[in-house]
Amino acid sequence: MKRITLEQVASALESKDNILLLCHAHPDGDTLGSATALAMALAAKGKTVTVRCGDTIPKIFSFMFRTLAQTVFEPEFIVAIDVADERLLGDTVRENYSGRIDLCIDHHGSNMGYADELYLEASSASTAEIIFNLLGIMGCPIDADIASALFTGVSTDTGCFRYSNTTSRTHRIASELIDRGADSVNIIRYFFETKTKSYAALEKLALDKLELFLDEKCALTIITMDMYEKTGSDESDTDRIASLPRQIEGVLVGIMLREIPGGSFKASVRTFGDVDASAICKRLGGGGHVGAAGCTISGPAEAARDAILAQTEVELRGLV
Amino acid sequence: MKRITLEQVASALESKDNILLLCHAHPDGDTLGSATALAMALAAKGKTVTVRCGDTIPKIFSFMFRTLAQTVFEPEFIVAIDVADERLLGDTVRENYSGRIDLCIDHHGSNMGYADELYLEASSASTAEIIFNLLGIMGCPIDADIASALFTGVSTDTGCFRYSNTTSRTHRIASELIDRGADSVNIIRYFFETKTKSYAALEKLALDKLELFLDEKCALTIITMDMYEKTGSDESDTDRIASLPRQIEGVLVGIMLREIPGGSFKASVRTFGDVDASAICKRLGGGGHVGAAGCTISGPAEAARDAILAQTEVELRGLV
Repeated sequence: MKRITLEQVASALESKDNILLLCHAHPDGDTLGSATALAMALAAKGKTVTVRCGDTIPKIFSFMFRTLAQTVFEPEFIVAIDVADERLLGDTVRENYSGRIDLCIDHHGSNMGYADELYLEASSASTAEIIFNLLGIMGCPIDADIASALFTGVSTDTGCFRYSNTTSRTHRIASELIDRGADSVNIIRYFFETKTKSYAALEKLALDKLELFLDEKCALTIITMDMYEKTGSDESDTDRIASLPRQIEGVLVGIMLREIPGGSFKASVRTFGDVDASAICKRLGGGGHVGAAGCTISGPAEAARDAILAQTEVELRGLV
Repeated sequence: MKRITLEQVASALESKDNILLLCHAHPDGDTLGSATALAMALAAKGKTVTVRCGDTIPKIFSFMFRTLAQTVFEPEFIVAIDVADERLLGDTVRENYSGRIDLCIDHHGSNMGYADELYLEASSASTAEIIFNLLGIMGCPIDADIASALFTGVSTDTGCFRYSNTTSRTHRIASELIDRGADSVNIIRYFFETKTKSYAALEKLALDKLELFLDEKCALTIITMDMYEKTGSDESDTDRIASLPRQIEGVLVGIMLREIPGGSFKASVRTFGDVDASAICKRLGGGGHVGAAGCTISGPAEAARDAILAQTEVELRGLV
């Protein structure tokens, strides 16, 4: 793996055609927004390009793809966008492209360096910020569709400008994207200001289950699969719940455990200040950012809870 | 009342001394942030200036006042900041200064024009944005304290860049304030990412009481005074609850009614799209913005609820 500059990324993309952009599985606004924005910009340059994701793309993101032709071709250049680890591509995509990924563009400090070349900017709040700068270097015009895709990445990866990864550059880019026609009002309305009735019901159950641990410095809630049935919600409704436990006053580490098929639990860890979420999750085989990270732990629920609390305690003790 | 330009506001302030800045009662981040930022900037120019508010300033805002000397003097020039109606000054302040207010700087379209001169910019998401531009015209340096006070106004009046009043200018100003040292991470953490345990308990009760009306286009919750006792919360905890009812999918009008001493109810109305919250509240003696407005209605709770629902129905019917 070789680290390259954003100028080198631009040159590489300009010299290639038949470009395949890969998103991570369990896709979010940043991987999809970044990849589709780049795809639209490359397509406007006359290149053949497509986006692939190992999971079905949630309906809420469909607006991004309205102008992107989905063509089938043998890829000449494969780029992973916002994918920290090859495993996050999902099984099918990984089987097809493992060891063949030419370039990765990412902002996760935990990036595993699986691609031949890597552009990594861990101080960037989102990969979308990097793509915005890349399009500037490549001289690609940013139309309203590209602006909306990038605004989705910029806003969702910062919890709508609330997380501490938000910088003055984040706001400057948001400002420019709105000026170029990003549909910021509706994007924010859909992603941040709307709760489906099923989500609202799941959120209520999650708040009922919220418990404080470790001298009230850690708040943890557990989402079990029977809660989806009870409320008509599904796994995609849990993303927003992950940020709730940390919001309780005095809490430095907020944890959401959600049950997945097979009896394991995905942990989403959100921290404040100097507490390193990524360090907590790395010890359990996961990774992420300082303020937000994740891992998968074997069940049952109590065992998963005790495992993540034990690692949280280690991390909190290290700060004393 | 005479409408003046921002350049004329700058000249007026430059020509005066012994300046009193008035905030509205039940103070929020915008009235306090805007007034203290302007006060700090004027003080740095050597002027005698103070800020007055009819209500006790909540502790959460105390960081703003750390460099502002509180002096007593006979005011030569009285400026109301972010105060749409003289009545919103609160009884004591109003009794002292009614009819003597020289200038009002505001962004509420419903401003009553009670001051001798008015600078009104209804398209501005916050009065803090106006003050930022005013300081630019006056050539006042923006240090970290001023930047933090303004960032508080900019972020709180937009629900942390979520409300539809947020524009590209809002983000550009936020970006510049962060570059000038605004403590954005802690301001957002305190105002948006922290729930006291008593607030969390009150929020849960409010969500339990949430009901849908008018073909599920309106969601309404009621906060009664006994709920404060039950949860250890108080009236200041209700501001954040006001935005929750509108978040339910399909809801165009979200209403929070909160009981006040004497058995009346304050209504906070939040709307989406073309639904005019200010029109709903005006018919009940209140006012505000298109997307967020308020009024006071006599109780009991059911009567207050029926009154606001009737006006909401009128407004929704007008849109068909």
